[in-house]
Amino acid sequence: VIDEPLREAAEIAGDRWMLLALGALIDGPRRFGDLVDDLGGIAPNVLIDRLRRMERHGLVGSTLYSQRPRRFVYDLTDAGRELAAILPALSAWAAKRRGEEPPRHTTCGTPLEVRAWCPTCATIVGTSANVDEVRWV
Amino acid sequence: VIDEPLREAAEIAGDRWMLLALGALIDGPRRFGDLVDDLGGIAPNVLIDRLRRMERHGLVGSTLYSQRPRRFVYDLTDAGRELAAILPALSAWAAKRRGEEPPRHTTCGTPLEVRAWCPTCATIVGTSANVDEVRWV
Repeated sequence: VIDEPLREAAEIAGDRWMLLALGALIDGPRRFGDLVDDLGGIAPNVLIDRLRRMERHGLVGSTLYSQRPRRFVYDLTDAGRELAAILPALSAWAAKRRGEEPPRHTTCGTPLEVRAWCPTCATIVGTSANVDEVRWV
Repeated sequence: VIDEPLREAAEIAGDRWMLLALGALIDGPRRFGDLVDDLGGIAPNVLIDRLRRMERHGLVGSTLYSQRPRRFVYDLTDAGRELAAILPALSAWAAKRRGEEPPRHTTCGTPLEVRAWCPTCATIVGTSANVDEVRWV
């Protein structure tokens, strides 16, 4: 099903460099030059374009840290951090394809899965067995 | 952090039309013409390109259903279905931005969250409180 939110999310998140920039910023603020290095292979003008788009969409904030030359440090907003929450699932998916080890539960070694969680009832919902438990409003 | 799996996942999933095609195929097989309609606004040659890429990456399989004219029906593979599992999280993220209702637990009405789940221990792991419980190998 393609609903309006998914259409909007795909327009924002459906970009390779944007996803990698989220991954680079997930551990804290980065300067422009750091990001160029992190995203090895990105042309500086492409990175400028993506950072502008991310600022416009409210995913990233920038702070001037040098007047001359004018240089900025970039940081995720709350909305950016929430979007970045999908990255471990993406990474785990690709790791599995590559025949690499998925993230495992330290206690028992079982590969972890991604599930919808109700913090009030402290229960998982929306597995194939009880998918009608989830109300998509 | 940008690891190799994330780099690969971003290269595959970092495309607006690809994400929307996953969303359109999540409920079952679709013909080419169905997908053009579902993805309202996509140019047929762009859709052909994306479906070829998805087949090459093993996300989609195609079956001939008419010899003349030659027409195909497309369906997700297991790998495609696993990647499509991130779509509800993307959709929920965008719904929240739009001030719309997030998916809720039918039983109690609480907005659902996305969590890592250990099927063996039947417990969630990797919340900020116990993030060291997850071993990223």
